[in-house]
Amino acid sequence: MTHVVADISVSLDGFVTGPGAGPDNGLGDGAEGLHAWVFSGDDVDRAVLEEATVATGAVVMGRHLFDVIDGPHGWNDEVGYGAGHAAKPAFFVVTSSEPESVRLADSHDFTFVLDGPAAAVEQARSVAGDKDVYVMGGGEVVRGCLDAGVVDRLSLHVSPLVLGAGTSLFEGSVPRTLVQREVRVSPHAVHVTYDVQR
Amino acid sequence: MTHVVADISVSLDGFVTGPGAGPDNGLGDGAEGLHAWVFSGDDVDRAVLEEATVATGAVVMGRHLFDVIDGPHGWNDEVGYGAGHAAKPAFFVVTSSEPESVRLADSHDFTFVLDGPAAAVEQARSVAGDKDVYVMGGGEVVRGCLDAGVVDRLSLHVSPLVLGAGTSLFEGSVPRTLVQREVRVSPHAVHVTYDVQR
Repeated sequence: MTHVVADISVSLDGFVTGPGAGPDNGLGDGAEGLHAWVFSGDDVDRAVLEEATVATGAVVMGRHLFDVIDGPHGWNDEVGYGAGHAAKPAFFVVTSSEPESVRLADSHDFTFVLDGPAAAVEQARSVAGDKDVYVMGGGEVVRGCLDAGVVDRLSLHVSPLVLGAGTSLFEGSVPRTLVQREVRVSPHAVHVTYDVQR
Repeated sequence: MTHVVADISVSLDGFVTGPGAGPDNGLGDGAEGLHAWVFSGDDVDRAVLEEATVATGAVVMGRHLFDVIDGPHGWNDEVGYGAGHAAKPAFFVVTSSEPESVRLADSHDFTFVLDGPAAAVEQARSVAGDKDVYVMGGGEVVRGCLDAGVVDRLSLHVSPLVLGAGTSLFEGSVPRTLVQREVRVSPHAVHVTYDVQR
């Protein structure tokens, strides 16, 4: 059965990027540490990453994130979702207009969705088979999916950073109570998964 | 050796109260769940609370929090810091002016500190002996102590709540990297303690 999982790295103060994030500045000023767990080599971190990769049937992302990923410093054969895996999932990009060109078009399957995050999740679900739909960010798309009631699980990777500014994950969110599902800990992050009441 | 521990319950989106917190509205709208772990009876939650109580030599708090605690719906013999314990620590309240009267004056030892959170920590340290100084909130005093560089450990009790508004713990904070020290998990909260580089 397919679950929709919003899965994102976040600072202790709730930012998913630092200030000035973008194609030329990645996660933004001082925010590289948000992904330290991804590259740590720690057994727990590797297992968390591997399990998510294996469980993924399709991915939803926002346009800003796509522009970083498809930009000159973005994904390549060594870096990026499913790098090193033969099977790459289909990606659905929430955007207001299609890009003129896609650098990664030969290696990745991107679909541009013009009618919002819930529609992107629905399209992703239709190709995910028995696997899960992962909403991988950015913050605006995760929040949009949560507020649209289409998320089953929220999986946060909480890094021991205070950023003080950047893209807030929850700013303007609808108040809600979640249910803790699983917590795993490495020296680099607290990985918490919550069940979301739709 | 005395450590200064900032210890506070926080929502997933970084709020230590909901909207409208105050003497007549406690933690604010929708925010009672922030302290669900305190009253859960769960073994992990009880141990976390008990260990902090036993370790405490003196407490620092802000004026808003004092006004709630000393207010008509505040602490009594059954509810509050050290309720049921024979020994109560000394409390140092950061404020701009002393209150006209103190309801709890007979049962608790409050000192009002007019020259800021770092001074309150220093006074607390002078009476804590070998035990720790706990900075118990509110958000403004915790942030003030962090930014003044007088905190050794940050102990967060992260409840599975999104509040959307209220008193933010980290808003306007100085960016910093912390070191994860310990994580304990109950169904009601993730208890994370970080070492703070002064």
